[in-house]
Amino acid sequence: MTDYRSARSRGLVPYVAGEQPKDRNIIKLNTNENAYPPSPRVKEAVERAAADLRLYPPTDGGLLREAIARRHGLPAECVFCGNGSDEVLALAYLAFFGEDRPLCSPRLTYSFYPVYAQVFGVPYAAVPMRDGLYVDVEALLAENRAVALANPNAPTTVGLPAVRVRAIAKTLRERGRLLMLDEAYADFAAEDCTHLVGEFDNLLIVRTMSKSYALAGLRVGYALGQPPLIRAMAAVKDSFNSYPLDRLAIAGGAAALEDDAYFRQTRDATVRTRERFTGELRSLGFVLPDSSSNFVFARHPEHAGADVFAALRARGILVRHFANPLISDYLRITIGTDAQMDAVTAALREVV
Amino acid sequence: MTDYRSARSRGLVPYVAGEQPKDRNIIKLNTNENAYPPSPRVKEAVERAAADLRLYPPTDGGLLREAIARRHGLPAECVFCGNGSDEVLALAYLAFFGEDRPLCSPRLTYSFYPVYAQVFGVPYAAVPMRDGLYVDVEALLAENRAVALANPNAPTTVGLPAVRVRAIAKTLRERGRLLMLDEAYADFAAEDCTHLVGEFDNLLIVRTMSKSYALAGLRVGYALGQPPLIRAMAAVKDSFNSYPLDRLAIAGGAAALEDDAYFRQTRDATVRTRERFTGELRSLGFVLPDSSSNFVFARHPEHAGADVFAALRARGILVRHFANPLISDYLRITIGTDAQMDAVTAALREVV
Repeated sequence: MTDYRSARSRGLVPYVAGEQPKDRNIIKLNTNENAYPPSPRVKEAVERAAADLRLYPPTDGGLLREAIARRHGLPAECVFCGNGSDEVLALAYLAFFGEDRPLCSPRLTYSFYPVYAQVFGVPYAAVPMRDGLYVDVEALLAENRAVALANPNAPTTVGLPAVRVRAIAKTLRERGRLLMLDEAYADFAAEDCTHLVGEFDNLLIVRTMSKSYALAGLRVGYALGQPPLIRAMAAVKDSFNSYPLDRLAIAGGAAALEDDAYFRQTRDATVRTRERFTGELRSLGFVLPDSSSNFVFARHPEHAGADVFAALRARGILVRHFANPLISDYLRITIGTDAQMDAVTAALREVV
Repeated sequence: MTDYRSARSRGLVPYVAGEQPKDRNIIKLNTNENAYPPSPRVKEAVERAAADLRLYPPTDGGLLREAIARRHGLPAECVFCGNGSDEVLALAYLAFFGEDRPLCSPRLTYSFYPVYAQVFGVPYAAVPMRDGLYVDVEALLAENRAVALANPNAPTTVGLPAVRVRAIAKTLRERGRLLMLDEAYADFAAEDCTHLVGEFDNLLIVRTMSKSYALAGLRVGYALGQPPLIRAMAAVKDSFNSYPLDRLAIAGGAAALEDDAYFRQTRDATVRTRERFTGELRSLGFVLPDSSSNFVFARHPEHAGADVFAALRARGILVRHFANPLISDYLRITIGTDAQMDAVTAALREVV
């Protein structure tokens, strides 16, 4: 049988997204979805926008782009909108990385980064961690490449302070290298780095509305950067898909951004639950770093990660376990509602 | 100032999408949107799906994939869902074309094809037309490359009969080459080629719901092909963006597919209006091929295309004019409602 695939696609090992079980009774804590629904304004905005589906959407995100700019106090020219941060990251690879622009990132990070490198033919170095879970900044900078950095990092939940990110951006700028900073979880952290956009022409910050705005089902991501970076993203997008955001995603995303009170209330609730659950895990003997995200990353010194995963699964609780031997002792557990986390704590008490 | 772009992105000449004017009073016939709104079931389905936006969508299109399979009488394993046919085409380039898999297409065709070739580094040949507007099948096959063929072709509106497409697929199969058949407008033609999917392992048919289902604002496209081709598309998609279709697009697209009576009624109305408008254009002295699409492609022997474009624009009618010197005499005019086309006819009567 003829294999019609291109060489580029023949060896691909794709990213594997977390399972989406059909059973609605499962406590689903495996893909870092928000514990709470999106702002009620989203549904209203979506219903209004559904009247116009006959017409193409704006190519640049339109009202959504303006709402993102307002949230971050930046001009719209500093905002690029895409179909979730996964697409934004992919387009950034096309725009900024390649044979002539090699890339590195910490070995433990969002596991999509090396996949993009593979599909787009980008030389990619995975830099060892420090003390198991921590980003080794010196080792990253020793590579003399552009850097892809998730901050807070996933799945480790550990964030670098903004002053350290600033120092990385500065060193890279001196070398003419880009820093792609993935702030997917930064809204759950004590600080973020969006204030650095004006200072650094080599900083592209990538964000998603899937987590802190509870819009995983709507596919809205964006990038912040100085206009030359944003124009480069737009050129690549317009060479790939003119309209990656549909009219409903644009309207819903903009409505969510405008309900800042709801955003803060649900975000703060998740952070409170995370702090409480972290304490409970530790009292059960789990070891975990302080999380800056809407999930925790924990291991128990006396129980294999796969065993705890299976025991929770048998009790109707789905968390994420990675086969990667560097972290196979760990479980990544999304922070759900207080009631859900109480159920997890009770189950873990039986298991360990 | 440092240029942080990759070599690949530095020289890009992106596709330019048709203008989306903000003035709602303009008669907008420039981007081949449907004259009619989508099925009312779309809005209902979208409103129901908006309750679940907290959760990620299925990665493969879920219910939408099944609805597409039912429409075409194929198993779901023969269906790939993406964010409009533009994204589906782009992913097909990654999956099937490259240095080792060169591509050709007619010189006059969807102007995105050479742009994809550029961004993904695919050797691309543009094959001259026969008699101005017609696909030269012999010249295409003389290239001994994979073929990207829009059928009916855009912007020429001319379709090849299914028997000729079948012969092309057969010749290419003997050579181990893929035929990527873009049926964006095939629902407006007398026949399509979806019945060939079972026969040819080298046939990938790409379709959109933007035109015949009036869902340009929802971004739903898909590909039909035998399972190895569909799996290759999925591997590339999962190396780019796991979830290109949001929950609302999935629900809305599936609902539109299930309202077959509405689909036929609006499609037939567009075809009737097209036939009537074609006759009126000819009576005004315009020259145009018989259209198999929801638009026509016409020139007037005594008037430059740019002049007629400007004269229509001054009368509040927006059509599409291409700067490409091969077709700069022509206008591409979307088929709107009967009332809209009467307004166009009246305006043209003043102009020519």
